[in-house]
Amino acid sequence: MMALDESWYSEIHGKDGSAFSFKIKEKLHEEQTEYQQIAIYQTETFGRLMVIDDCVMLTDRDNFLYHEMMSHPALFTHADPKRVVIIGGGDCGTMKEVLKHPGVEEAWQVEIDQRVTDLSEEYFPELCSANKDPRAHFYFGDGIAWMADQGEAAFDLIIVDSTDPVGPAAGLFTQAFFANCLKALKTGGIMVQQSESPIYHSDLIAGMHRDMKAAGFADTKTLDFPQPVYPSGWWSATMAAKGRDLNNFRETDIANKPFETLYYNLECHHKSLALPEFMKKALAK
Amino acid sequence: MMALDESWYSEIHGKDGSAFSFKIKEKLHEEQTEYQQIAIYQTETFGRLMVIDDCVMLTDRDNFLYHEMMSHPALFTHADPKRVVIIGGGDCGTMKEVLKHPGVEEAWQVEIDQRVTDLSEEYFPELCSANKDPRAHFYFGDGIAWMADQGEAAFDLIIVDSTDPVGPAAGLFTQAFFANCLKALKTGGIMVQQSESPIYHSDLIAGMHRDMKAAGFADTKTLDFPQPVYPSGWWSATMAAKGRDLNNFRETDIANKPFETLYYNLECHHKSLALPEFMKKALAK
Repeated sequence: MMALDESWYSEIHGKDGSAFSFKIKEKLHEEQTEYQQIAIYQTETFGRLMVIDDCVMLTDRDNFLYHEMMSHPALFTHADPKRVVIIGGGDCGTMKEVLKHPGVEEAWQVEIDQRVTDLSEEYFPELCSANKDPRAHFYFGDGIAWMADQGEAAFDLIIVDSTDPVGPAAGLFTQAFFANCLKALKTGGIMVQQSESPIYHSDLIAGMHRDMKAAGFADTKTLDFPQPVYPSGWWSATMAAKGRDLNNFRETDIANKPFETLYYNLECHHKSLALPEFMKKALAK
Repeated sequence: MMALDESWYSEIHGKDGSAFSFKIKEKLHEEQTEYQQIAIYQTETFGRLMVIDDCVMLTDRDNFLYHEMMSHPALFTHADPKRVVIIGGGDCGTMKEVLKHPGVEEAWQVEIDQRVTDLSEEYFPELCSANKDPRAHFYFGDGIAWMADQGEAAFDLIIVDSTDPVGPAAGLFTQAFFANCLKALKTGGIMVQQSESPIYHSDLIAGMHRDMKAAGFADTKTLDFPQPVYPSGWWSATMAAKGRDLNNFRETDIANKPFETLYYNLECHHKSLALPEFMKKALAK
């Protein structure tokens, strides 16, 4: 058995018994913020890598998968999303994708740790290319408290672009949080939340469906996509809709979208919604 | 940076600059055969793991993804597959899936290294549960030479379930081999071959399409699926058809299939055929 030496950065997925590693050229930055430890590396083949509290957040090479799939499917499912909020998303990659939609009038990024955004502007400038768009608004503070303080029916779309459901992000995976999102959404509104790995975390995904419905959402659906640098290389997001179902989306608008993507297209929107047999069973329980 | 110690097995994807690791309980077996080094481990959370020449072949936990997707999409695309050959596939997992189809009358597994099959029968008995089916036939020898020796129009379906395109498997990724497969297929026949990672190896996939068409196949299509233990966690297979196109498959038969699967179903057949934007561009070059 070969041990990986110090020239590798390894994320150990403890309870999953696996690890993913990057060959590293150099550590570019490391700091302990008020909330967490952030490190940035230059890798050999994935461009730059951001790590928070020993969890891989993103790389230059493959973040397009996550950011496109956290935003475009939900945006094209909503009839006409004008006011969008991103909870978390401090690297600004989701904001960039959201603002590709000309119909979006206002997008808020509510990130607890301003240092994530500061470091992203320094080390991942491409992700921050839309930050000066006049529609982009930034609030740095606790997303759970912020959401509880919103008025009723303030938003069309809520994207929960969070870390794993441990530590500060645990409160984002609760019925109480979902109920605050429901309240803050207009009728016809949608929330979409990153929901971990289909193969490692199908129980968590099933629990989110139950809790979203218990909070009052009318319909829920999980979508999936490849994400090489996250545990299992396979990731998901779960949508919930207020006062509507999630059976249809704007297919013609997708086919004619006025912007480029690297992964997302009409076929991949359909692709993301097809559930494997084991997921159907997990969600039917 | 944390180094992974000797309690982990790491597969290093050298030129991709990444590695995937399993927490190991014990090494169960290791040998150098006439062709390659085979090792079998008991992992903490993936069940048993087979490694050949430092490349992860399969685990108990997630091999269903690969074996189902290497077999059922092609079998259900063919109108009525009766005679099937598997080149490689020594662990017998593909044979097990093929023989779930009642219409298959004869299936050949042509594996170069009998020790792979012997060890699979000992350590992965579930994958070998169909080996005593009277329709199952085993030949141990070089699949490239065997295929060149077949008569014309002998088979309905050829599944190339090989290792990576280096070493003994390199000859399976050539126009000359594809031409021999074409000759051995009946009109209306299909070959399907594992074709590596969409995100790491899109150039190789594009080259297979070109070489399959140059060999005389009428149509080609790539399908993809998640595979956590292979590089990038995202894998593909590429199909080629003799004297027909690949636009349709037996949807009603899939919806009524008389056997169980863990991943594959009608929706996931469609799912596998949807190409991301970057793949469309790679294949259009």
